[in-house]
Amino acid sequence: MQISPSEVKIPVVGPTPSPQSIGEGLCFSDGRRKVDYVLVFQRRRHSSIRSHASTSVSHDRLSIVSNGNFPPSVGSDAAAGRGGAILGGEASVGEVFMELGGAGGNEPTDPADNEMRLIRQEFEANLLEAGLEIERDRELKTHGPSFTRLHAPWPVLCREAEFLKIKVPTKTVRSQKMNQPFQPKVPHQDHERTKFLSHYTHLYTHTHTHTHTHTHTLLCLPWLYSAFYKYQPIDLVRKYFGEKIGLYFAWLGVYTQLLIPASIVGIIVFFFGVATVETDIPSQEMCNESLNFTMCPLCDGVCDFWHLSTACGTARASHLFDNPATVFFAIFMSLWAVLFLEHWKRRQISLSFSWDLTGIEEDEEHPRPKYENILLQKRQRKQKNKKKKKKNEVGKKRNLLMTNLSCFLFLFCSQFGLTFSAVFGVIIYRITVSALMAMSPDPETKSNVRVTVTATAVIINLVVILILDEIYGAVALWLTELEIPKTETDFEERLILKAFLLKFMNAYAPIFYVAFFKGRFAGRPGNYVYVFNDYRMEECAPGGCLIELCIQLSIIMLGKQLIQNNIFEIGIPKLKKLVRAIKDKGSAEKKSEQERPPQQWNLDYALAPFEGLTPEYMEMIIQFGFVSLFVASFPLAPLFALLNNVIEIRLDAKKFVTELRRPVAVRAKDIGIWYNILSGMGKFSVIINAFVISFTSDFIPRLVYQYMFSQTGTMHGFIDHTLSYFNVSNFKPGTAPQNSEHGDIIVCRYKDYREPPWSPDAYMFSKQYWCVLAARLAFVIVFQNLVMFLSLVVAWVIPDTPKTIMEQLKREKKLLVDVFLREEKEK
Amino acid sequence: MQISPSEVKIPVVGPTPSPQSIGEGLCFSDGRRKVDYVLVFQRRRHSSIRSHASTSVSHDRLSIVSNGNFPPSVGSDAAAGRGGAILGGEASVGEVFMELGGAGGNEPTDPADNEMRLIRQEFEANLLEAGLEIERDRELKTHGPSFTRLHAPWPVLCREAEFLKIKVPTKTVRSQKMNQPFQPKVPHQDHERTKFLSHYTHLYTHTHTHTHTHTHTLLCLPWLYSAFYKYQPIDLVRKYFGEKIGLYFAWLGVYTQLLIPASIVGIIVFFFGVATVETDIPSQEMCNESLNFTMCPLCDGVCDFWHLSTACGTARASHLFDNPATVFFAIFMSLWAVLFLEHWKRRQISLSFSWDLTGIEEDEEHPRPKYENILLQKRQRKQKNKKKKKKNEVGKKRNLLMTNLSCFLFLFCSQFGLTFSAVFGVIIYRITVSALMAMSPDPETKSNVRVTVTATAVIINLVVILILDEIYGAVALWLTELEIPKTETDFEERLILKAFLLKFMNAYAPIFYVAFFKGRFAGRPGNYVYVFNDYRMEECAPGGCLIELCIQLSIIMLGKQLIQNNIFEIGIPKLKKLVRAIKDKGSAEKKSEQERPPQQWNLDYALAPFEGLTPEYMEMIIQFGFVSLFVASFPLAPLFALLNNVIEIRLDAKKFVTELRRPVAVRAKDIGIWYNILSGMGKFSVIINAFVISFTSDFIPRLVYQYMFSQTGTMHGFIDHTLSYFNVSNFKPGTAPQNSEHGDIIVCRYKDYREPPWSPDAYMFSKQYWCVLAARLAFVIVFQNLVMFLSLVVAWVIPDTPKTIMEQLKREKKLLVDVFLREEKEK
Repeated sequence: MQISPSEVKIPVVGPTPSPQSIGEGLCFSDGRRKVDYVLVFQRRRHSSIRSHASTSVSHDRLSIVSNGNFPPSVGSDAAAGRGGAILGGEASVGEVFMELGGAGGNEPTDPADNEMRLIRQEFEANLLEAGLEIERDRELKTHGPSFTRLHAPWPVLCREAEFLKIKVPTKTVRSQKMNQPFQPKVPHQDHERTKFLSHYTHLYTHTHTHTHTHTHTLLCLPWLYSAFYKYQPIDLVRKYFGEKIGLYFAWLGVYTQLLIPASIVGIIVFFFGVATVETDIPSQEMCNESLNFTMCPLCDGVCDFWHLSTACGTARASHLFDNPATVFFAIFMSLWAVLFLEHWKRRQISLSFSWDLTGIEEDEEHPRPKYENILLQKRQRKQKNKKKKKKNEVGKKRNLLMTNLSCFLFLFCSQFGLTFSAVFGVIIYRITVSALMAMSPDPETKSNVRVTVTATAVIINLVVILILDEIYGAVALWLTELEIPKTETDFEERLILKAFLLKFMNAYAPIFYVAFFKGRFAGRPGNYVYVFNDYRMEECAPGGCLIELCIQLSIIMLGKQLIQNNIFEIGIPKLKKLVRAIKDKGSAEKKSEQERPPQQWNLDYALAPFEGLTPEYMEMIIQFGFVSLFVASFPLAPLFALLNNVIEIRLDAKKFVTELRRPVAVRAKDIGIWYNILSGMGKFSVIINAFVISFTSDFIPRLVYQYMFSQTGTMHGFIDHTLSYFNVSNFKPGTAPQNSEHGDIIVCRYKDYREPPWSPDAYMFSKQYWCVLAARLAFVIVFQNLVMFLSLVVAWVIPDTPKTIMEQLKREKKLLVDVFLREEKEK
Repeated sequence: MQISPSEVKIPVVGPTPSPQSIGEGLCFSDGRRKVDYVLVFQRRRHSSIRSHASTSVSHDRLSIVSNGNFPPSVGSDAAAGRGGAILGGEASVGEVFMELGGAGGNEPTDPADNEMRLIRQEFEANLLEAGLEIERDRELKTHGPSFTRLHAPWPVLCREAEFLKIKVPTKTVRSQKMNQPFQPKVPHQDHERTKFLSHYTHLYTHTHTHTHTHTHTLLCLPWLYSAFYKYQPIDLVRKYFGEKIGLYFAWLGVYTQLLIPASIVGIIVFFFGVATVETDIPSQEMCNESLNFTMCPLCDGVCDFWHLSTACGTARASHLFDNPATVFFAIFMSLWAVLFLEHWKRRQISLSFSWDLTGIEEDEEHPRPKYENILLQKRQRKQKNKKKKKKNEVGKKRNLLMTNLSCFLFLFCSQFGLTFSAVFGVIIYRITVSALMAMSPDPETKSNVRVTVTATAVIINLVVILILDEIYGAVALWLTELEIPKTETDFEERLILKAFLLKFMNAYAPIFYVAFFKGRFAGRPGNYVYVFNDYRMEECAPGGCLIELCIQLSIIMLGKQLIQNNIFEIGIPKLKKLVRAIKDKGSAEKKSEQERPPQQWNLDYALAPFEGLTPEYMEMIIQFGFVSLFVASFPLAPLFALLNNVIEIRLDAKKFVTELRRPVAVRAKDIGIWYNILSGMGKFSVIINAFVISFTSDFIPRLVYQYMFSQTGTMHGFIDHTLSYFNVSNFKPGTAPQNSEHGDIIVCRYKDYREPPWSPDAYMFSKQYWCVLAARLAFVIVFQNLVMFLSLVVAWVIPDTPKTIMEQLKREKKLLVDVFLREEKEK
């Protein structure tokens, strides 16, 4: 490895800072050239503190992963084109690095350290060759962070701008506008410089100073401290953080804004339920004690017969959510989801027009460093085995495919296994606890069985979800690493898709269970279904499963938001900060040795690194699921989502501005795979809502009763109609109530459509059952196709490009043609 | 109006041709400059033949419409940009033309003729100003076509190429390739010249010479005369006819190619039916005379009871199409449709890459001349009424909206009215004729009732469809004209959508009736549904409705293809040619006066004008409907479509090359709205096939019987299970058979799931009915969602851009970067 002669060229700033650098804070020591980018290298302590050194190495390597997850992914083709020219020793660098990683603990640190220094020197020499200017502090200490500051001069900026096809007006008259996008003040350019650094930044823990410039101040004021009902200063966000983060906040803004009408309609639907609860005949009938339906016992042996009127409360409560307005609301929300996506498409096009992103092409990307390492290792191994086999190529491809397939298989197996065992565990918990509590002699306990069991079970569910969420995040990362995707974008997309599938399953499995499976496999009196030979499968509450679904949904949604947003997002960073502060105190004495006051980059380095936007998006997408998927059962979901998001925007803003290192600006045309996920969820929500309305709610049975079976054409007698008869003598031995308070009971009632005991096909499904089933299925077909058709119409009616933008584009084109023609004439 | 001084500049060729022009045929009289475009003006005879003159005018005006339908729609923004510069008298031209049109028959011809001449002169002066070179024949005759020939010199071509962003290699070394796309030989360029002519071509009946150049010969040989299994020479087609027509033939090729696997699978499914017909238990049971089901009479009074075994033939025939393989085939064909669309997307991208269409942007278009005229008239009227009202603007908008809405309302009313009255008429025909024939004493007639009635009814249907097709074409055009769309593309899209909706309804209404409505509203014995108080609604054949659907589908599909393709597409042009030839004989003596031999443009002018691609596409799309929508009932449809298309491609090719005037080359990136229509039909076909399988075929009842009701778990007893009992004494007075040959019959059977007469709810729908209905609906849901999911997966797995193209694009980009960097270094 040639030691570059440029080593000497890099100006080194001594411990005593020059007066200018103190004054401006973000300039080179000459006070003129701006610091555009800072590279940090964490030098390890020498053998004195051996163990600490190795953790430092591993920390370094970890930081590669976390920083490498979301590097600038756009516009790196230019770097690819010059990869050979700028950095010749590509393969060897990776090689050395790998050897370093492998060497870890059992070699003396010095040689590795030396090699790292050589690599660094080579890298810096290449930076200089690419036209950048470098300055670094004199290496005073033998450990701790060492900062290398970069400045990109004007010609370099121009060259990179050319590659990125940044538009400038064709007329040179308006020189102001022409210069503006090139001013080094705008962080936008930082990216151009960094993009061909990104490939080698795994050598450094790189950071990006929070330039306390005009933009920063402008951004902080209206964004962080403005009233919640004001629009976000998206353009400033984009100027400061780059397009990718700008798009995230714009998306969040559009989503939150569109939640407002959804919440209003949701509240109206809820109040419609409140207003009509008194006039609802079925719940009146359920509460009517004179009707006196004697229900079959809820558990074997110890439970007694009971009167339906005791379940009056849940019946009334379920009417709040299960009323005809809910059907309308489900259709409304399906269209709302389409509307949201269309609206976002328009906003995205407006933004990409005003942010000059229309010309961005999907460029070829660098392979990820990890990918190159693995390839290198393979090549080395191959070279060794070269004489052994020749059809390695085919084998490799097959291998990759196999890995891919087996990954997915493993994913789904583990996924289904874990999630369903968790759900099943909670079910078992519920069954056993309610059986145990029912056996308890205390009447107080007995009366609270359902409430206690449901509440504790949902909380257990919630805790399990939160824990599994973290595990699944790690699993998804691990699985994606196994697949060895070539580029960072590829890596990110695969990771997101996997993490989404896992987390989605995790969050929704218990809800799906309550909505579609609970109570459907319980059997009937005299022929119950048992789990583990002992416990009866649980049934829904007498008011219908919808109320349980509603409770489940609201607790999981609220709990997830409160805990994940507040505790995880605010608490944990605070905690980390505290830990770091305590650590720093230990080295406080050493700090006092430093003569220089801490520069901005020193302060920024103390902040937490930026971990990518995936967690932020993921949280919102899962919330979008709560808002769209099961909205038929919980019309207040949009309202809670709205309240959460209003806070979330401010919290995210604060986090980005004050608590994270400034992320590297990344150009992006759209929100990428998230849009596909959103649109997929929108489509999925149609069918889920159709099933919730037709199978979970009582909407269809009521309609069928009213128009097919009711003698009077009203709902009177509906409750009687839904209850089947059971002859007490048909109880299996030992399952009949042991000591009944209700005296001599011959038949009890249960909720199902089955033939009465005196029919020839006793306890078979009755004609009503098939009739209602057909109606439910027909409703699903009608609802699904109607809503899909309406969605298509909505998407077709709303043009993707706003009219104003279209006109502006036309005008621009016209101007261009005019200029062209004038030039033509002048020839 | 200023008479342009350029009048004198246009070289006029005398009656005696210069030797060069005879030799080359397609050059100016100097023998060097090529004729790139020919404008034709049909001069009217003077007052001598007054009536003929006015028809000539109207012919002229008609030719505007037919030529104006599909003018070059791409790349006209350049013209728009310079519209003002080149042609100042825009508004006044339109005005004068309108006045001319209005004057039609009651003014002397000379002034109008004069004015037209002035307009022509102005137009030609503007062409000269734009850099084109013009030559025309000396005006020998006072009537007949007059040809103005245009030549576009090199600088004009360069300028227009710049506007169209035609790519040339950046390296100037390979001068061959750089020059090639600019050679005036290539008809591709013609378009660039014509596009800013297109706006004014309504002054002329313009034509485009069939250049008998290398390309033409190259094209004719492999395309017209090659074996049918060879690929089409798409690149040559595109070179000669432009991208739009090239894309049509490419699309047709892809479609035909993909019909091959579909046909093969269809044939396999059909032969599966043939092979299993002997082992099919239900059709065995139907044919088994020993089971002896006595069926209720098929008509009132005159019809007798009959034995089910007499319907053995249809039962066996329907098994050919209604077997389990059909379900598989329906799923296969739904996926096939998705695959076809994805494959076409890839092909389109490859083509647009190799044809250099990737850079085409959707440009602003000229408003249509008609639109401008109407606007002008409105403005004039407004100027008159200016003082009356001020809120005209709002009124106009509301007016436009109202027109739009009322158009659509009218459209659908007339549509539904006409189509359904046609369908209903045929139903009435069927009902009455079968009733009459049943009354006939001749036993021969009686036995053939069903065959005769079905066949004649379908033929009537077919004739009605063919007639209404033409009417609907005119109605769609008229409705679109009423809407006054602004641009030609807009006009075309609206027209296509309307014509498609109307023609689709027309072609499929009778098929929908047979598939989903026939026999479902017939009532039951003792309570039949009557039309016009006299005629019973028709029922399906005992073998199920599917066989009737199959007959209907095959006859309409084959008939439509044979008649429309062969008679309309070949016969009528031949007829027109004959008529023209006879007419020409009349003027043969006058022709002999001409000294010059006919030039290529004279020959081409005798051909039929190009009417746009819409009819060609429409025919194929309707065929695609037959192949995808009801494929579950007729697995041989893809085979017939394939056979038709193999012929169709050659016929179309022959028509385009030898029988039509050469169309103006039009650039197009894709097949436009047709893709959306295709994709919409693909989606629609999923739900239609689901309904056909579950409701029209016997697949679901069989499954339900086998798994729920059968005692043995086999299909034995299925026929008995599907037949309900009817007590003969329950016949309404006068409807019972008058003289039965079957002796004493107490109960007869009919095909329905109803309670037997001895049940408490006699003749109500039985539990089986609801059970089967639920199963049918469940199947629809499962099928629809499964197929939709699979389609999504298929569309997701197949990348839109082929890998080779991706790699080529990458390589090109890399080269560009290299060149750029080298230039950078040289600075």
